[in-house]
Amino acid sequence: MKVIKFGGSSVASAEQLKKVLAIVKDDPKRRFVVVSAPGKRHDEDKKVTDLLIAYYEKVSSNQDTTPLIEEIAARYGSNAQELGLDASVCEAFTAELKALQENFNEENPYDLDSFLATGENLNAQLIAAYFQNEGLKARYINPKELGIIVSDEPHNARILEESYDKIYQWRETEEILVIPGFFGYTKNDELCTFSRGGSDITGSIVAAGVKADIYENFTDVDGIFAATPKYVHEPALIEQLTYREMRELSYAGFTVFHDEALMPSFKAKIPVVIKNTNNPSCTGTLIKEAYDRENPNRVVGVASDSGFCSITINKYLLNREVGFVRRVLQILEELNISFEHMPSGIDTISLILRESQLTPELEQTLLNEINERICPDDLEIEHDISVIALVGEGMKFHTGITAESSAALARKNINLRMISQGADERSIIFAIQGEQERLAVRSLYYTFFD
Amino acid sequence: MKVIKFGGSSVASAEQLKKVLAIVKDDPKRRFVVVSAPGKRHDEDKKVTDLLIAYYEKVSSNQDTTPLIEEIAARYGSNAQELGLDASVCEAFTAELKALQENFNEENPYDLDSFLATGENLNAQLIAAYFQNEGLKARYINPKELGIIVSDEPHNARILEESYDKIYQWRETEEILVIPGFFGYTKNDELCTFSRGGSDITGSIVAAGVKADIYENFTDVDGIFAATPKYVHEPALIEQLTYREMRELSYAGFTVFHDEALMPSFKAKIPVVIKNTNNPSCTGTLIKEAYDRENPNRVVGVASDSGFCSITINKYLLNREVGFVRRVLQILEELNISFEHMPSGIDTISLILRESQLTPELEQTLLNEINERICPDDLEIEHDISVIALVGEGMKFHTGITAESSAALARKNINLRMISQGADERSIIFAIQGEQERLAVRSLYYTFFD
Repeated sequence: MKVIKFGGSSVASAEQLKKVLAIVKDDPKRRFVVVSAPGKRHDEDKKVTDLLIAYYEKVSSNQDTTPLIEEIAARYGSNAQELGLDASVCEAFTAELKALQENFNEENPYDLDSFLATGENLNAQLIAAYFQNEGLKARYINPKELGIIVSDEPHNARILEESYDKIYQWRETEEILVIPGFFGYTKNDELCTFSRGGSDITGSIVAAGVKADIYENFTDVDGIFAATPKYVHEPALIEQLTYREMRELSYAGFTVFHDEALMPSFKAKIPVVIKNTNNPSCTGTLIKEAYDRENPNRVVGVASDSGFCSITINKYLLNREVGFVRRVLQILEELNISFEHMPSGIDTISLILRESQLTPELEQTLLNEINERICPDDLEIEHDISVIALVGEGMKFHTGITAESSAALARKNINLRMISQGADERSIIFAIQGEQERLAVRSLYYTFFD
Repeated sequence: MKVIKFGGSSVASAEQLKKVLAIVKDDPKRRFVVVSAPGKRHDEDKKVTDLLIAYYEKVSSNQDTTPLIEEIAARYGSNAQELGLDASVCEAFTAELKALQENFNEENPYDLDSFLATGENLNAQLIAAYFQNEGLKARYINPKELGIIVSDEPHNARILEESYDKIYQWRETEEILVIPGFFGYTKNDELCTFSRGGSDITGSIVAAGVKADIYENFTDVDGIFAATPKYVHEPALIEQLTYREMRELSYAGFTVFHDEALMPSFKAKIPVVIKNTNNPSCTGTLIKEAYDRENPNRVVGVASDSGFCSITINKYLLNREVGFVRRVLQILEELNISFEHMPSGIDTISLILRESQLTPELEQTLLNEINERICPDDLEIEHDISVIALVGEGMKFHTGITAESSAALARKNINLRMISQGADERSIIFAIQGEQERLAVRSLYYTFFD
């Protein structure tokens, strides 16, 4: 049995919903259908969730909401009409939208969540009605009924472990269940949305709960590519990778979806496949716990992310001082700054961290604190650093990946600000100047994929 | 004006002392001569300092000391005789040795230092007498008179800053001053020896104090080699390197002398040259603050050290947790364990540390503490790791060193447990399995020196 999830662009228009129906019909194992709110139908379009945020803001500030309610309802109404559904479906939706305003209470921290979740919730109802109308034995199910119980953290909920047993009860259900993504309910029955990952995380939770054979994640791309199309023309599609490889690629800037959203499936060892609603015959990218074959590819992908900076601290005999680095990290912690890497030489360490954490004032405070409390011989900060990750479980079975990759970068005169390869040998991480990121990704891609 | 220092083997026998005289005479700028205690004259010989330790132990345990006093005095006596000195010189030495026993006080923590320092002190007196006898205007000077003032730490003294001004007063002296290495005096006039570095550190302090043009450090090798002769047959002599390069090579196992001993000269920016008493026409190895030429060698040397272990901690999203690594290092600090490197991947960090710090019990405590307080997904320790450092200031001007060096290691099927190159780009550090250390050093050496 399969859990299948459709992203925002896959459920944005009647035309897309017809593809969704065809995909669900195509395989009787597709029994749990998780849906997003309607996304953009074209580049200038608005996502329904963004309209709902605007609606919430108008309600909060006591402005006229009629045009927005009409605009949102019309998004569902036009789809319903094109799909041949009864007009009454959408009248109910308008009533639900109005109820949000009627029940609004500035003091209630969960109120925003109810607005946000309405995009998914109405879409699931519409899609269930459409499936029924097309003769499928399907029904809408509310996450509360399904058993998605979350922590008491408005707009930032985490799934509670007890949910999985509750969801498991639905494993043998005869109907196709259409589930709105993105939210659950607290133990006190407050609707609460997840911090990120939208319907991806709901699909992932449901797949883990019902112990699905596979979690099919339908998006608007064919799968995961070995490099970003932003830098590489028609990059190779990755046919298979492991959770760990996925995680490492995501970390370094891959944005197909947020990898944390897949954690519930990863933990339950449910395979995940990324597929394209607009090209369902493409096999997509399969993500599993481990490779079936013995000799995985040396490198599955190259990812990059910009916006790092590097702080270098030189101090003679620093490694002789027990606690030296700990004291540096204490300063970071006091300033609530996290770091990504800490390459070290002899008498020198560098900290690579995300620049977005630093305001100019905070940067100055950080440097002052290090100077005063650590008394380095030398302290430097370098901005606009990019981090490139070369990822592949197969690395540990092949010597020479470091050599080949650093040679590729050297040929393009790319200077390494840092290179780090840890003991797990699943990735090599390079830090370079930001302006060389594109060149670096290209040269690594063409070294390992050609 | 030059400060010149002779190591133990250079001042062990009359034959060697004749070479010392010739070297001092050869250049009138050699005005401050720092000498060690007599070292071994052949492989089975004993160092005088070791005899003095044995003497101290016999005195402490109330055993017969006569044969030892005779043995030590004879070491000086036979040299004096061969050099044509008056026998009275050595009678005074016997009296000095006996005085140590007479003044012995178990309660005095500085007593061992007086025993230890006697090897250098008598040798300086003997050499001064020899120089005078050969017509040089030379005299012995006691470190107290010279102004070497140290901290109150028996066998572990550090130089006090005020010493340098006092030593500077001797800059214009007309005589050649013969200075015993290895000790100074506290503000309370207690004789106190340095923790390590012996006469190297005294020479370095004197050179900094008198602002010498150069500090000539005479040993029994031609200089510093680009790799250890233990692994490489007739390695290339390094003609010039920087303090930093010297430091980085020393860190990773070079043992010509302890690099910390040269710090006073390094800080005062006095050039240091390592030369061979037995081959003084060889230009040796010059160590300076920076290169004169614009384009230094890419790599000056490759060094290695064994006896490390690597602890790898995997935890999902660890870099999201502010303070994660700080908490790991806190545990190390509480157990008084220092670490050398911390390569990081995504969701993983490794700590590379010197194995000698861990007993089996301490290792278990460390792992238990990490497990309990950090709750990693996975924790592993790997023993018998060697660290190889490839060093060269020129690296920052050449891309591709990382590629060339890792390719050299890959060709020999050497798997990298870690590779780290920090922002200063003066060295690349590889961690490998201990059994591959020799192979790794050889393959790197023959890649960059041929």
